[in-house]
Formats: sequence, structure tokens, C-alpha cells
Amino acid sequence: MRSEIAQQPEALRTTLDALLPMADEVERLGRETRQVLFIARGSSDNAAVYGSYLLQAHGGRLATLASPSIATTYNAKIDLSGVLAVAISQSGRTEEIVDTMSWAAECGARTVGITNGGGSPLTEVADVALVTQAGDELAVPATKTYTTQLAALAVLALGLGADLDPGLLRGVPDTIDDVLAQPTDQLDAIVERLVGVQGAVISGRGMAFSTALEAALKLKEACYLHAMGLSYADLLHGPIAVVDRDTPAILLAANSGPTLPGTVALAERVVSAGAPAYGIGGGSALAGACDLSVPMPDVPEWLAPISLIVPAQLLTEKLARRLGYNPDAPRGLGKVTQTS
Amino acid sequence: MRSEIAQQPEALRTTLDALLPMADEVERLGRETRQVLFIARGSSDNAAVYGSYLLQAHGGRLATLASPSIATTYNAKIDLSGVLAVAISQSGRTEEIVDTMSWAAECGARTVGITNGGGSPLTEVADVALVTQAGDELAVPATKTYTTQLAALAVLALGLGADLDPGLLRGVPDTIDDVLAQPTDQLDAIVERLVGVQGAVISGRGMAFSTALEAALKLKEACYLHAMGLSYADLLHGPIAVVDRDTPAILLAANSGPTLPGTVALAERVVSAGAPAYGIGGGSALAGACDLSVPMPDVPEWLAPISLIVPAQLLTEKLARRLGYNPDAPRGLGKVTQTS
Repeated sequence: MRSEIAQQPEALRTTLDALLPMADEVERLGRETRQVLFIARGSSDNAAVYGSYLLQAHGGRLATLASPSIATTYNAKIDLSGVLAVAISQSGRTEEIVDTMSWAAECGARTVGITNGGGSPLTEVADVALVTQAGDELAVPATKTYTTQLAALAVLALGLGADLDPGLLRGVPDTIDDVLAQPTDQLDAIVERLVGVQGAVISGRGMAFSTALEAALKLKEACYLHAMGLSYADLLHGPIAVVDRDTPAILLAANSGPTLPGTVALAERVVSAGAPAYGIGGGSALAGACDLSVPMPDVPEWLAPISLIVPAQLLTEKLARRLGYNPDAPRGLGKVTQTS
Repeated sequence: MRSEIAQQPEALRTTLDALLPMADEVERLGRETRQVLFIARGSSDNAAVYGSYLLQAHGGRLATLASPSIATTYNAKIDLSGVLAVAISQSGRTEEIVDTMSWAAECGARTVGITNGGGSPLTEVADVALVTQAGDELAVPATKTYTTQLAALAVLALGLGADLDPGLLRGVPDTIDDVLAQPTDQLDAIVERLVGVQGAVISGRGMAFSTALEAALKLKEACYLHAMGLSYADLLHGPIAVVDRDTPAILLAANSGPTLPGTVALAERVVSAGAPAYGIGGGSALAGACDLSVPMPDVPEWLAPISLIVPAQLLTEKLARRLGYNPDAPRGLGKVTQTS
């Protein structure tokens, strides 16, 4: 997992080289459709959450998440004309995802497959396949396949007409190089504070919500932490009760943007409830409200999720080893999950 | 909370009397739209998950969940013509929800408000208001406002042409009377097993996924349990690693239907991982695979979520008291949550 985390800048450069020229193909599909429906599970589903916010906040299109069991368990027939179904699967071989995309096509949708599995079944059934170039990923917890999925989703948004600068997207690999070269004293301090903790709340708002969900998944699968990934708003509707001295909150945010004030206010509320708050990103405002925090380079809010997950990956890998677990091979998990 | 749990049959009878005659009004909105977009947070968002499965599995319409921050934080403009936006809010006064529904209307959507707040701002901005008749709810954890929301969603589905029998919906209050009259020995035994437990996974598939999310929310807000509500499929994509001797799974299912075999298989997998499995519903098949389980009356799978949540509410209330907490007033929470 550690070496695959370090491979992300290169994986992202290769992926952007391969996919940015495909924006035109996506644009043609965009003209035939008016909204996006994501089909995914696990880390890929967290990537879909990023895609959903990106397309809605910056692309002017409704973009929501499908429930695959509607296709695979209930065999429902739904009119999906005008829908662009975007299936995301690291392997491209999870039957539930391939079957749901085939179902969407039968229901009238056009289809895009985002996968690291070139030549996989998902690429065969998709109208357009955006194949990420992460190389082989051997550790069970997804890292470079996840960040390259986010890059593919940014390309998708550009192809669908989002008013965003592809040059900034090109700069993300360098940003992650910078993150990987940072001193790890704050991160190491957070790891030590998490030793012996049973559960934690992980939260982010808007674009960063996807990162909170993905960070929570990493901590659940590799550290067996009871990590509850929640949006800022859903957290305040009940689950905020769960934070206490032994149940810290990890809060993620871009260094600027419309969701930062709410995230800072959340950190203050967590601390006033007597619980530790640890920040990733969020600039000096979030750092000032948290007990410990990992600084991040300045990037536009829409790109922040691609680099913001990296400290959470490092945190997971370090905490797992500190707890005596092997982060590469968590108990009970295989690399390709079949759930059909 | 205990007395409000017991008021549910009456609240449901009164709600169905008021709302079933409104199916015609809903039908007119249905003719002007082709898909549904739910707007909700907290328990209401869990109700929306039920609505989403019900409309897609039985109503032939795409029905997915909105991200309110797209409206309130990003102020995005999206074409929502052909969309029926359905906002759900117990109080009808959560600004984020009211503002998001107003935004949806400005974007071209037709609107339905589902709320227990007659005369609330939500009823004023909705094309059609389905006002549930739960009466005053004083305990912070929603119980009767939640089950009456599910009943309103079943009425919505009938109005939108779902091929379901309203007579069976009329029978739900009697089913809950039966659940409330059941011996509580199994439930009490599960409560005792959960004393001292820090975290639990709560899972259900398809129609019952909404119940798993709502049960997890109750346990988080009133018992401060690290309760992770996950769909069957998402659980297998990573979080299954978290179950162990000290982290039980609570599994919910209707007594029959297409999701039962998967839920039984999940119980077997949990037990084989050395973790306790507790069932609610799922008939003899799920009971046979679990360490302890609460039996439920036979009802069709599409109606099961309305009664299946009741043992989870009772479990939450009993566990909170057993742990010395006041389930009516959890720490850090008020009755109307403002998150805008």
C-alpha cells in the first residue's frame, strides 16, 4: 500500500495523458443525454460522489447515484432515455456493476465505463471506456486506482462541458508530489492519538464529502476502526451525539471555497463537545480550530479531493502498521469483490 | 420515546386516512414528470432511501437522492424539467431543505413536500403537501414521524402508478400492533449482548437498506454506539473487515422476497468471521443463521420497512436506558436541526 500511495503522481500523469484527449468522445455522448447516473460500489462509489458534486456544481447537470440492486435483485424496468450511465469499477470485473450497466443500456441509457481494467467486461459493454493507467494494484485497499478514477471523472466533467481549466487538472500530480514530500510530524502525531481509539467520525462537505467517505472506508478496512463517514449536514442530524473524548472527528476541507466556513464551525463544535478534532487541509482556518492538522498545498476546491485523500491514505497505512496489522491484506477481503 | 413508539399504529391509521385520498393529486404531478429526486437529511433521508427503492422497484421511475449543498452552498443551476422533487422534513422548518426545494422549483421541477408540520414553510412552497398526522413528537430521536413518512412515501408510489395494493398498506398499523404485543425475550437478550459493545454494523439489502440506515442512526444518536449502517453490497466492499467478536452485525430483512437469500448468506459470513449476528425479521431462514433474532409477522417485502424499524426503535430505547442514558434527549442534539 505504501509503494502504491507513492506511485500516484506517475499514475495520474499517465492517466491524464491517456484520457484528456478522449474528452471529445465524451462530449458526443453528452449531447445525446441530459443527466448522469453513477453505478459503483466501495471506493468506486466514493469516487462517484466526487463526480456527482463536480458535475452538478460545475457542469450544470443532474448527477446522482444508482442503486444497483434495482437492476440485479429487482429486475425493474425504468425509462433511462436521456441518461448517461457511468459505471466505475477498479477491476471492471465486478459482475454486479457490469450487469447494472448492461441493464441501464437496455433501459435506454448511453454508457461510460471508468476502470483500471483494460479489456475487462466493463470496457466491452460501455459506449465509451475511460481506462485509467494506474498499473497493477496489489494491496487490497484501493489508493492509486481511486485517485485515477477521480482524474477520469474530472475528464468526464470537462467533456460534458464543465467550466473548469484542464491546465489546473494537469497540475495535480505535482501537488501530490509536494504532499508526499512534506514532513510527517503532524500526521505521525495524529496516528499516535488514534492508537487505542475504537471509533471516529470522518466528515467533509460538498466536494470533500467524497474524501470523507473514502477515508472512512480505508480506516475501516485496514485499521478495523469504527469509522463513520458522514457529510457535515447529516452529521448534525443525529450522529454528532456520538463524538466524545474517545471518539474523535477527522475533518477534511480544501484550503478555500464555500464549504470551508462550515467545516471550521464543525471543528469548533466537536471540540466544544470535548472530543478531539483532527484536520486535513482547510488552511489556517481549519488548523486553528483543530487539535492537530495536516497542511495541504493550495489547489482549487474542485481539485482538492484528488490530493486530500493522500494524507488519509498515509494515515491509514501508518496506523495499521502501528496497530500490528498488514494494511496490504486486511482480514476477510479479496481484491475483486463479487456481490451480485 | 417509548410512548411515541407505541403511538405508531394510531399515527399511521390517521396518516393513511388523510393521505390515501390525495393519491389523485399526486397522479396529476406524475403525469407532468418522469423521475423523482428526493431532498432530505437525517431520518428523513433514510425514509427517502425507502422511497427511492419503492419507486424504482415497483413504480418504473428513476428515483434518486439530491445533494442539498448543490443548491445551498454551490448555488448551481441545473435543468430539472421533468423532475418531481420530493422534500421530506419532519418539522418542515429545516431551512436547508426548504431552500433546496425552492431551488428545485426554480430549476423547473414540480414539488411535493412530506412533513409532519402542517402549515410549515415546506407546505407553503410545495405544489402538493403530504402532511403526516403523527401528532407532536417530543423525543429527539424520530420514531412515529419516520414511520408515517414511509406511509406517505407508499401513498406517493401509489399515486405515481406503482403496481401495489393499497389494502395491504392499510393493514400496516395492525401489523405494528402485533409487533408491539410480542414477547420481548429475544430483544432483551440482544440488548444485554450489546451492553459494553463499542461498535456494530447494521445491514439490510434493497427495500430494507433504509431500515438499516435508520436503525444505525437511532443507535448512534441515543446510545452513542459506533453504528455503521451499510448496504449488503457496500459492506462486502471493505467494511466487512471491521466485524469481529466485539463488533456484531445486526441484519434486517423481510420474511420473504428477493433480498432474503443474500441477507442469510451475510449472516453466515459474519458468524464465520467470529462475530455475533443478530437478526430482525427474515423469517426462519435468517433466524437459523443468527445468534439471536426478533421474529416479525409476515408482510409483503415492499411494506416490511414500516414495521421492521419498530424492533430497532425498541432496541435503541431499551439499550439507552440500560446504559444509563436518556433516550428522549441525547447529548448535543435539538429537535429541529438547522444546517444551512
